[in-house]
Amino acid sequence: MNASANNAGDLPIVDGATRLYGIIGDPIAQVKSPEILTARIRAARRNALLLPMHVKPDLFDVTVRGLKALANLDGIVITVPYKPTIVPYVDRLLPTGERVGAINAMRREPDGEWVGDMFDGKGMLRALQEQGADPKGLRVMLLGAGGAGSAIADAVADAGASSLTIFDVDKAKADALAKRVAKFHPGCKAGAGEPTAEGVDILINATPIGMAEGDPVPMKLGKLDPKFVVADVIVKPGPTPFLLQAQASGCRIVGGRAMIGGQVSELLRFFGIER
Amino acid sequence: MNASANNAGDLPIVDGATRLYGIIGDPIAQVKSPEILTARIRAARRNALLLPMHVKPDLFDVTVRGLKALANLDGIVITVPYKPTIVPYVDRLLPTGERVGAINAMRREPDGEWVGDMFDGKGMLRALQEQGADPKGLRVMLLGAGGAGSAIADAVADAGASSLTIFDVDKAKADALAKRVAKFHPGCKAGAGEPTAEGVDILINATPIGMAEGDPVPMKLGKLDPKFVVADVIVKPGPTPFLLQAQASGCRIVGGRAMIGGQVSELLRFFGIER
Repeated sequence: MNASANNAGDLPIVDGATRLYGIIGDPIAQVKSPEILTARIRAARRNALLLPMHVKPDLFDVTVRGLKALANLDGIVITVPYKPTIVPYVDRLLPTGERVGAINAMRREPDGEWVGDMFDGKGMLRALQEQGADPKGLRVMLLGAGGAGSAIADAVADAGASSLTIFDVDKAKADALAKRVAKFHPGCKAGAGEPTAEGVDILINATPIGMAEGDPVPMKLGKLDPKFVVADVIVKPGPTPFLLQAQASGCRIVGGRAMIGGQVSELLRFFGIER
Repeated sequence: MNASANNAGDLPIVDGATRLYGIIGDPIAQVKSPEILTARIRAARRNALLLPMHVKPDLFDVTVRGLKALANLDGIVITVPYKPTIVPYVDRLLPTGERVGAINAMRREPDGEWVGDMFDGKGMLRALQEQGADPKGLRVMLLGAGGAGSAIADAVADAGASSLTIFDVDKAKADALAKRVAKFHPGCKAGAGEPTAEGVDILINATPIGMAEGDPVPMKLGKLDPKFVVADVIVKPGPTPFLLQAQASGCRIVGGRAMIGGQVSELLRFFGIER
């Protein structure tokens, strides 16, 4: 991103009245949110910045308590590995955060309470919908029952997916997530199962496979029906090898960047910066 | 200050690798350091920002401990009312901070230690020197023995002033400061006394008188020798009424803005951003 994209005309970069937002994680230097969200905040003509905030695991408690006490800090975005860890530090969870058991955003309310919610799944949902692939009434196969997988499972079930099959190399983890989804979304037939494109409308990779150069694909894709939709949480400049295979069959694809794009709007609405 | 002044070409405003500096105080919205120092940091092509950080008195301990633990925060500037309060939170004081008993800057050393120092007096000293008024061998009259006064007293004595007369409405405060100066700078004849321009070369106002619209002058100035130098810590866009009186006699004047300008260079050197 170039500088002009996060400049907003005559707004100074920072002054004494600037309000702060932070993204906490470990490591932090690789995160894209500071550039992306700050550009949108400035486009909305708000004197605020979203800053990288490197929180070390052994200093997590003291750092988070200090950030919450900082009077001109209005919100925190949470990334790896703190999305479940931070939950006890909010005063109130919104329903998605409550169901997923992890949050990626918290804000200070006018009464001083901190409220948390989880938008990882909503970002993927929004990106799917933008591809004309609303999960409502559709059958979803999800690879990976970790943090991203848990959030996406909740979001697609909440959006009305008719069934959700979850695969994880750790079968107990897939089972536990399926039970959790079934409990909160009785209309969605949720269960653990092997990776397959058979009897499925939407296939989502929520494993980290594809993040490292030279990774295999998370699942072999043969010839697919072009109505099939394939999504991948991996954030790369272009489509992952997994998505390229799906694209070769003429399927619609949704990448990690689209998921992040979908989430940015949700986050900015949560922070009261966009409507 | 307009936006272009704190822009540096193609540097993004913020990204994941941005290093943070903060200025803590209460209130905070009025501080000018974020704009001024961030412009200089960017001019030095450093991916860093100096941010306002509003620390509430009742949450001082938890907030400061959190900020010190934040791994990508490299330095803190301290303003009213925390310059003396913060002293126990550094691991090591540099000599000026030690002598003054208050600091306005602290930085994290490579070994993780926090080191603090006081630059308020050095800023005034530098501004005086830029007006050709090096206090070395000169007689100084100082009005005000509070935070700013203490720092300035140390700086002019350290620079070799031959005498320093200190006035404060609280006589005990003036006495205590004079004793402190005499202890650390035996070459400077320091004592408490009434405000006067007689037998003085440099007159410095370090009281808050002049900050509010309609304030009286801190001391009546009659006709002065044009060799006389008058300085004022009050930060205003133009000269204060006190300085205007001195200017009418053809004296050199040094305002709060010049003092801040002198201090900015000292702070940026302390933070390793400028040489």
